[in-house]
Amino acid sequence: MELNIGMVGYAFMGKAHSNAWRQAPHFFPGIPQPRLKAICGRSREKTEEAAKRLGWESVETDWRRLIARKDIDIVDIVTPGDSHAEIAIAAAEAGKHVICEKPLANSLEEARRMVAAARRAKVKNLVMFNYRRVPAIALAKQMIGENRLGKVFHYRAQYLQEWLVDPLFPRLWRMDKTVAGVGALGDLGAHVADLSLHLVGRLDKLTAVTATMIPTRPLPGQPGKTAPVTVDDCAVFMGRIGEATASYEVTRLAAGRKNYLAFEINGDRGSMRFNLERLNELEYYDRTQPAALQGWNNIMVTDASHPYIAHWWPAGHVLGYEHTFVNAMADFLNAVATGADIHPDFADGAETNAALDAIERSAQSGQWETVAAVEAAGSGR
Amino acid sequence: MELNIGMVGYAFMGKAHSNAWRQAPHFFPGIPQPRLKAICGRSREKTEEAAKRLGWESVETDWRRLIARKDIDIVDIVTPGDSHAEIAIAAAEAGKHVICEKPLANSLEEARRMVAAARRAKVKNLVMFNYRRVPAIALAKQMIGENRLGKVFHYRAQYLQEWLVDPLFPRLWRMDKTVAGVGALGDLGAHVADLSLHLVGRLDKLTAVTATMIPTRPLPGQPGKTAPVTVDDCAVFMGRIGEATASYEVTRLAAGRKNYLAFEINGDRGSMRFNLERLNELEYYDRTQPAALQGWNNIMVTDASHPYIAHWWPAGHVLGYEHTFVNAMADFLNAVATGADIHPDFADGAETNAALDAIERSAQSGQWETVAAVEAAGSGR
Amino acid sequence: MELNIGMVGYAFMGKAHSNAWRQAPHFFPGIPQPRLKAICGRSREKTEEAAKRLGWESVETDWRRLIARKDIDIVDIVTPGDSHAEIAIAAAEAGKHVICEKPLANSLEEARRMVAAARRAKVKNLVMFNYRRVPAIALAKQMIGENRLGKVFHYRAQYLQEWLVDPLFPRLWRMDKTVAGVGALGDLGAHVADLSLHLVGRLDKLTAVTATMIPTRPLPGQPGKTAPVTVDDCAVFMGRIGEATASYEVTRLAAGRKNYLAFEINGDRGSMRFNLERLNELEYYDRTQPAALQGWNNIMVTDASHPYIAHWWPAGHVLGYEHTFVNAMADFLNAVATGADIHPDFADGAETNAALDAIERSAQSGQWETVAAVEAAGSGR
Amino acid sequence: MELNIGMVGYAFMGKAHSNAWRQAPHFFPGIPQPRLKAICGRSREKTEEAAKRLGWESVETDWRRLIARKDIDIVDIVTPGDSHAEIAIAAAEAGKHVICEKPLANSLEEARRMVAAARRAKVKNLVMFNYRRVPAIALAKQMIGENRLGKVFHYRAQYLQEWLVDPLFPRLWRMDKTVAGVGALGDLGAHVADLSLHLVGRLDKLTAVTATMIPTRPLPGQPGKTAPVTVDDCAVFMGRIGEATASYEVTRLAAGRKNYLAFEINGDRGSMRFNLERLNELEYYDRTQPAALQGWNNIMVTDASHPYIAHWWPAGHVLGYEHTFVNAMADFLNAVATGADIHPDFADGAETNAALDAIERSAQSGQWETVAAVEAAGSGR
Repeated sequence: MELNIGMVGYAFMGKAHSNAWRQAPHFFPGIPQPRLKAICGRSREKTEEAAKRLGWESVETDWRRLIARKDIDIVDIVTPGDSHAEIAIAAAEAGKHVICEKPLANSLEEARRMVAAARRAKVKNLVMFNYRRVPAIALAKQMIGENRLGKVFHYRAQYLQEWLVDPLFPRLWRMDKTVAGVGALGDLGAHVADLSLHLVGRLDKLTAVTATMIPTRPLPGQPGKTAPVTVDDCAVFMGRIGEATASYEVTRLAAGRKNYLAFEINGDRGSMRFNLERLNELEYYDRTQPAALQGWNNIMVTDASHPYIAHWWPAGHVLGYEHTFVNAMADFLNAVATGADIHPDFADGAETNAALDAIERSAQSGQWETVAAVEAAGSGR
Repeated sequence: MELNIGMVGYAFMGKAHSNAWRQAPHFFPGIPQPRLKAICGRSREKTEEAAKRLGWESVETDWRRLIARKDIDIVDIVTPGDSHAEIAIAAAEAGKHVICEKPLANSLEEARRMVAAARRAKVKNLVMFNYRRVPAIALAKQMIGENRLGKVFHYRAQYLQEWLVDPLFPRLWRMDKTVAGVGALGDLGAHVADLSLHLVGRLDKLTAVTATMIPTRPLPGQPGKTAPVTVDDCAVFMGRIGEATASYEVTRLAAGRKNYLAFEINGDRGSMRFNLERLNELEYYDRTQPAALQGWNNIMVTDASHPYIAHWWPAGHVLGYEHTFVNAMADFLNAVATGADIHPDFADGAETNAALDAIERSAQSGQWETVAAVEAAGSGR
Repeated sequence: MELNIGMVGYAFMGKAHSNAWRQAPHFFPGIPQPRLKAICGRSREKTEEAAKRLGWESVETDWRRLIARKDIDIVDIVTPGDSHAEIAIAAAEAGKHVICEKPLANSLEEARRMVAAARRAKVKNLVMFNYRRVPAIALAKQMIGENRLGKVFHYRAQYLQEWLVDPLFPRLWRMDKTVAGVGALGDLGAHVADLSLHLVGRLDKLTAVTATMIPTRPLPGQPGKTAPVTVDDCAVFMGRIGEATASYEVTRLAAGRKNYLAFEINGDRGSMRFNLERLNELEYYDRTQPAALQGWNNIMVTDASHPYIAHWWPAGHVLGYEHTFVNAMADFLNAVATGADIHPDFADGAETNAALDAIERSAQSGQWETVAAVEAAGSGR
Repeated sequence: MELNIGMVGYAFMGKAHSNAWRQAPHFFPGIPQPRLKAICGRSREKTEEAAKRLGWESVETDWRRLIARKDIDIVDIVTPGDSHAEIAIAAAEAGKHVICEKPLANSLEEARRMVAAARRAKVKNLVMFNYRRVPAIALAKQMIGENRLGKVFHYRAQYLQEWLVDPLFPRLWRMDKTVAGVGALGDLGAHVADLSLHLVGRLDKLTAVTATMIPTRPLPGQPGKTAPVTVDDCAVFMGRIGEATASYEVTRLAAGRKNYLAFEINGDRGSMRFNLERLNELEYYDRTQPAALQGWNNIMVTDASHPYIAHWWPAGHVLGYEHTFVNAMADFLNAVATGADIHPDFADGAETNAALDAIERSAQSGQWETVAAVEAAGSGR
């Protein structure tokens, strides 16, 4: 079986997704074979360069034409967030299966429309929170399913980066609210919110603070000119997941933290912690061991008994960032072929939009805010 | 020069303080010689046993008699928090120098009275936030003074312990609000708040949540009987220190975290992090190094060039928990002898009471609360 | 420019090399484009399956036919060591550039013949000690070139694995000396010897011990039958590199060590350490820093300023095992195109054979043995 | 019960032992009370200063007079190694219990005479390999006794320090062979050899290399003058303990290694590792856990269930270097009172002399050497 892919966009995420489409069939031999059929971008020249470099067979310059093509089975959206809803809804309505980069949308309302469209069209849909498919995080999820943590008391997470510490780093469009919508929150905060949902469940209510520490930056290519930064460069928020406390921090201003997405969960049977800078490791504290032997057990998640690993290399041969996307594409291709459920789907992605929405409201109001329901009770997932 | 010590209390902190008084003169040979003159407790029998074990010359059973003794120069208070104010004020009024265990008081109002009394009496006063004198933390303070972090963007701290995870752990008096005042907040939260004040400055405003996850526990010695837990067993709070964001979590319910007091500071010149379970180490990220060489520099704080170390052992011979108290006692004896300033004094301690007070108000109100001033502007410290 | 690759062999290393050939042009856009022209194996059926899975255009079942093909520019040898010499020499004589898996040969004499053949044919040649191209190790090499370690006193290295700890693990052909030649020594020891050569120079003399701890194992597919293990499963050796001491241990019997290739270098200006289980990190101790700030600096080698990284992902997005091969293929393709030198070439590879040869002699004799010269003085490299 | 201590020597080890004698009764309340009766040194002035600083009641300037005193029960020897035998034998013959700093003697022959003297006199005797009483090492020993490692394949150990890296560090008497006997080997090597004996058993045979990397150093107080260094500053050795391989390295030239005494043991049921720079931690890999959960379990050895800890502080309150001596003195006082066995006794200490003797022979001969028996077979321990 072969499935034809059409991708909209070609920047950083385009590189990561293209790599995943190319790699998946070599490491997951049984899956439907993806064919990198067409890549779409506004600039023909740049898109053709990308097609060559990334391995796509043809080029489109209008995403509507891409979606209209009969020979496309799956539409993969790697554009900025403000175009996700329009493209994804059109693709679903055209009967295409859809993968969408995160965050699903720039607003909860858009996200809800995307969920509805995908559901009506009965197409497979996935929002690319790729970190769910880090083998160590997949193992964490599995261990939680085995009740190894027991009742959860606390969840704490950070996503810390440093690339905006330098005040001379230019004011890109990403720092302009009218274009980008949100800052660290939409980028780092979305990952943090999705993992929290995935591992310990839905945030019920929260209180938040956001800040823009460096309020103006030089405009690139315009010597001597600066412009205001109108998005947050960091956010701190805390809330409740059922009875458990949950605390979060995301920032682009943490010197020394390169890509530090970390979480720790404390339950009454044990604890667990992870950080993305050492993504092949999961630490687990098991309170059911004899007292004198209890410790933080550093599991190197590179064994054939661990999720996804049997497809890759022998024990101890570590994986990196890009493998998360390959794992995701393989799962998606399988889901299309078999009709199996796949997560995080658009409804899961909308949950993160609901959380981000409450964070923004709270940062404005200074109050605790309730995270809105994505859909009417009983609609099920 | 010899200084006579009288100590009120003899439990865990009594053991730690007694050890420090005994040890200080052997490792800091130039300081005034402390003499462990008298220890005071309500039960004569238990106090006599403690005097013998801990090395005190005589016993009192009424702290007022201890304070009245002419041969006592320094009163060291290691009782529960509800008696601090009364004893400390009386001691100061009797002209004794005073050391008081933390938190300084059970309320901001008490703390303010203690500050005033010590000031009027012109006696040396110290609140025992011993962790300021972990050599690695003293080094951190020194490096901040050298502007190695630059402008601070973020402070984050945790104090995580696990001793209440077991729901069968008995309901001690510490878990009864009428006796103990507060729970994890007053114990762990006080340390966290003091270090934050010490390293990066005063919290201006904050929002907080506290919780009691295990609401009833068995009463010790009363099989089958339980009683409610009326203090918090965890707290999460966040606030602003000037422009910087600050986030905190304290709990007694984090399986695997034995005594995990940790902080991280992110500035525009560098970052720093520490945790008490590895108290001989300080990690420092220096953004002023060449890009390809920047990393987290794990400094083993056991060199003669580091604070306090020259008094102890050769490089690489690690110190432990108790040394923080010895360092503090040595500094206090010197301050008494020379008249030099010493910190954290009662005014510093009252700042932590002001922060705890705002946390409790916020946990009730669900609102951001302002941290009250300890004293009128211009009163100086 | 396009270069056609023919690969001999298709097992674990075949998978790793194929992946590298496929990936290189997407991440190193300026290099000559490799074309996966032909793969060669004895079983047509298995080779055809591999060709499909690994992405090769055609299949051969006789390596002589592969070498005879006009449309092959580069021969990539991933067969067991006993066939390296014959294939590589024939390929060089046919004017093909040659890549050969490590160890270069099963004996020093074979290795010397390979060096001579490649030199006569003036073809580019590379022995696949892929770990030289771990970015952290490439950074280490660069820093040593900048004299950051100064005069070296000590080198110590280990390569520890655990896959033979279980005595019921079957006796594969790899444990039969008549087929495999050597055990842990030829596999793990070769990597250790090459890195030592690369980073600190040539071992002059050494003394060694090897052992076979589990002397018999079950024969696979023959219930109840066992056979002797006739190769070493571990080796310890020590020697001198100039004045410096050097110590090494390799084993397949270290429970908990998955793929622990580690080294530490101590010099009079600083030290350095690395381990492959955390391959994105390099630790560096700089004695030229102020005393109070000296520490082990953990450099996360994922910055654009580090070797190879600009071709991959943004800072902090970690790489894995397979990237070492991609980096190597990119370098080799460039070397073929430009005529530039590339290392480790066959002469470098022969040095490792010389070291392994001395280790085996010493393990027999119980004496210190001199590492033989690979070639006559003045033949240069 | 009270036991009177007389100590010979007052330098670094004198400080550590004095501290231990002072501290033991406060933390081990049930033991016989040690009384710091007399300290002995050649210089009356310096010894009187030490007595005051370290807490001794009286002073002697001739160790023979100290031994002759009726009021001394225990003689504690902290002088350089060349005087151990004479003092210890005289003390034993005078019926005193004896503690002797390590290494037990400067030669195996001396060590044998000390063993014989102690045995004849039937006095308690202890050689101060204090690291056996690091709680984490005591736990390791206990776990080995529970067969948690199974059959041991490998032992590897290092003791790495850095204090001689600077070539301008002066040539002290410790670097003069006629006075000091040996260098890094006798100091660091002795600890390494004792722990190896303690944890995995007796070295049968070995091969060794020693080196003096910095051959001359400035003479202290004699500007412009240098003198040769006539002891080793590093040693590498390897051997067999039964079937297991064992490898060791000790040096004073490892930049960044402050006091890095480390070992790792690999067995067929699990592995274990430790390093003294993090002395509150023991790492344990348990092969009997389910495959997907196996990892390096970092046990924080500060729990009341761990050796010695119940005498110190609550869980998570870390200990340091000096506590090892306190634990040792408490055990020795108990052994004197109860008659119980205590180790490492002189016979154990002589084993280390036997190992050092073989190392020195091998470093001379370049051959494997057998470790001599300390005493006739059947003499038992």
